[in-house]
Amino acid sequence: MTAFELNPRLDGDTYPVADLPLSALRLMKDANYPWLLLIPRHNDMIELIDLSREDQHQLADEIAQASRALREVTACEKLNVAALGNQVAQLHVHVIARFRTDPAWPGPVWGAAAPTAYTEMAAIALIDRLRQALRN
Amino acid sequence: MTAFELNPRLDGDTYPVADLPLSALRLMKDANYPWLLLIPRHNDMIELIDLSREDQHQLADEIAQASRALREVTACEKLNVAALGNQVAQLHVHVIARFRTDPAWPGPVWGAAAPTAYTEMAAIALIDRLRQALRN
Repeated sequence: MTAFELNPRLDGDTYPVADLPLSALRLMKDANYPWLLLIPRHNDMIELIDLSREDQHQLADEIAQASRALREVTACEKLNVAALGNQVAQLHVHVIARFRTDPAWPGPVWGAAAPTAYTEMAAIALIDRLRQALRN
Repeated sequence: MTAFELNPRLDGDTYPVADLPLSALRLMKDANYPWLLLIPRHNDMIELIDLSREDQHQLADEIAQASRALREVTACEKLNVAALGNQVAQLHVHVIARFRTDPAWPGPVWGAAAPTAYTEMAAIALIDRLRQALRN
């Protein structure tokens, strides 16, 4: 079995949060929006339908787990969940906490505002709270 | 049990294609992109995680069914799947056929180009081909 290789751009744009049974859960380095990625750890997956039906259901469970943790931590007003992959082919699912006051509302976040860096302290604190919420 | 009420804006923006076990499958009235919506037929659902786990898995199956049919009919280069709901709260999932030549590529479709109407003949023909592909 070949080791899973995370796309370098996804790797560079995110911090690791947790390894769920199917997916790597990561936080986007963009303080404009609390924004998670789920990346199923299988090579050569592009579309959701490239996953087996069993893995599609597992991914649905992990989207739900990530969504609940993100909403608990951020008290967001809306969740956005999307698998687009127009720019980075490796299958990844966005789970984004949205607020009526965020820079892209009510539009989608992609391309709306230049990413804003987290301070190291803020990133560590958010990741720690997400990890705690994932355990609930 | 209260009858399911489709949001008037979702209703007006789409043509009916099929009733799947959980979701109404509809075609967006926008010839820029072959673009389906899946709307679970439960009232008062906003987030994916408002659905029961069983319904989340059923929705994953219906997303897969719609994706395969759409790709078969359009020979698209990429599928985009998303549950956003920033503008229309009623839970709905976009399944969009993307091409490197479409007006929004490689960005997301929302807000990218003014909708282009299908001719009645073109809409009927596309819906017919989608219904045939859903049976496969």
